[in-house]
Amino acid sequence: MSPEMERAHQALRELVSLRSGGTVRDSRRAYEVWVEQFPLPAETVVAEWEFGEWVRTPSSAADRVVLYLHGGAYRMGSPATHRTLMAHVATAAQAAVAFADYPLAPEDPFPAAVDFARDAYVSLLDRFPANRVAVAGESAGGGLGVALLLRLKDEGLPLPAAVAVNSPWMDLACGGDSMALRAYRDPMLSRDSLLAAAGEYLAGESPLNAYASPIHGDLTGLPPLLVQVGTEEILYDDAVALAAKADARLIVVPDAPHVWHYFSAWLPEARDALRAMGDHILAATR
Amino acid sequence: MSPEMERAHQALRELVSLRSGGTVRDSRRAYEVWVEQFPLPAETVVAEWEFGEWVRTPSSAADRVVLYLHGGAYRMGSPATHRTLMAHVATAAQAAVAFADYPLAPEDPFPAAVDFARDAYVSLLDRFPANRVAVAGESAGGGLGVALLLRLKDEGLPLPAAVAVNSPWMDLACGGDSMALRAYRDPMLSRDSLLAAAGEYLAGESPLNAYASPIHGDLTGLPPLLVQVGTEEILYDDAVALAAKADARLIVVPDAPHVWHYFSAWLPEARDALRAMGDHILAATR
Repeated sequence: MSPEMERAHQALRELVSLRSGGTVRDSRRAYEVWVEQFPLPAETVVAEWEFGEWVRTPSSAADRVVLYLHGGAYRMGSPATHRTLMAHVATAAQAAVAFADYPLAPEDPFPAAVDFARDAYVSLLDRFPANRVAVAGESAGGGLGVALLLRLKDEGLPLPAAVAVNSPWMDLACGGDSMALRAYRDPMLSRDSLLAAAGEYLAGESPLNAYASPIHGDLTGLPPLLVQVGTEEILYDDAVALAAKADARLIVVPDAPHVWHYFSAWLPEARDALRAMGDHILAATR
Repeated sequence: MSPEMERAHQALRELVSLRSGGTVRDSRRAYEVWVEQFPLPAETVVAEWEFGEWVRTPSSAADRVVLYLHGGAYRMGSPATHRTLMAHVATAAQAAVAFADYPLAPEDPFPAAVDFARDAYVSLLDRFPANRVAVAGESAGGGLGVALLLRLKDEGLPLPAAVAVNSPWMDLACGGDSMALRAYRDPMLSRDSLLAAAGEYLAGESPLNAYASPIHGDLTGLPPLLVQVGTEEILYDDAVALAAKADARLIVVPDAPHVWHYFSAWLPEARDALRAMGDHILAATR
């Protein structure tokens, strides 16, 4: 493992350590403090959006948008935790990023996040043709993005032109073999912590509900989908299963931990992941 | 499946049809005729090399080289079948391509190809530092490339800086589940035809020999390795097993058949594959 990749593992261990112990409010705040090590790139323009915020860079085309759905196990994540990453996504995809600040559990359990993502997406269709809209996300937000696609299909709404997810959480029952097989390699997530977060989010709903665990949905007929995952993730099987069922392009990144794309400041594989995401979106929205 | 991807499947069915029936000499000739549909890009410079030929384009740096090992089940393939593809590889990797015209079965069975690849690689080290040398290949040539790495490790020779293989044939016993599971989706290869070619190549040697079936070798400590494979391949499991054992970057391309990267003239996924190969080589040989 390269020193940079080892540093990514260490940074995630620190994040887990910072977040442990306190209330969910403490965890959210600790996440925001941790992320301050990644400063916002110069010339990033941030603006209010009724569903979150806009993030644009000098590379952002006026007529291309990425609806981004953040991770955080449906209980954390905010504009503050993701603004720098959104700037990198905006540059990679040559697009405006519409960051969805969706409601979190335990205050707002399922299906609040799905409803919110649906409404945020539909609002974008007032301003952009669907063939210039992409959906992207990571971890819980990757699962939420695929759940959004299922919802759009069910409602007969226009689908986005491209979807790109990193380290998606597709199965809230956490049934993948990698939950055990990669447990000792994953510096960040544990099955127990995921199941605890799933319990709060589901609030009694079945984890088999495809809007919560979209691996159980009909994943045919989706737009071009790019799935990226690290080998050091208990969510590895979630990504591989999604790629197989949705006929997606899959990129497996050796040694990478969960959401390694955060570390583009110093991790080459993170820059690769952002470039792959951007290229995928660009190719489908030109 | 896109019309372009369907065309790739059709083109491979035609190749199989053209090659079937005659002697191995007829098959080789049919392959060369089939490939004439892909004209050499303008400004390609081809020169003799004692182990095959050099292919350069205006993008080729003077001090970076890709040793390319072609496919053809160890019984076909020549400069004529690969010159156009080599020009695209040269451009993508910004390198000279050293195309290895290794001896073929049945005339020259195992280990002639491995010995030849080893000697060709060593000769490149007289002209390039190892950190500017990459090895690439497809199908049988992908397996041969990994076998070459095992040989270099065993001899204590300097390894190349990067390796990139598409649709590699890693197991000459053809034991992967995809041999059956994807048999009806693969427009080109069948387990029977692969086993027949393996028999001629092995000429009595065990398919468990790691220089013939490198999936059985010690795949730790290799240079950065990129593996690309299509979902419509009976060799799918060969690629996935290689990526897992060698801790490689894996790209799975939906709907793509065997050696889809041949079709960059009109297939976007082929251009993607060449770009990924080139980017991977560039990142490791700068």
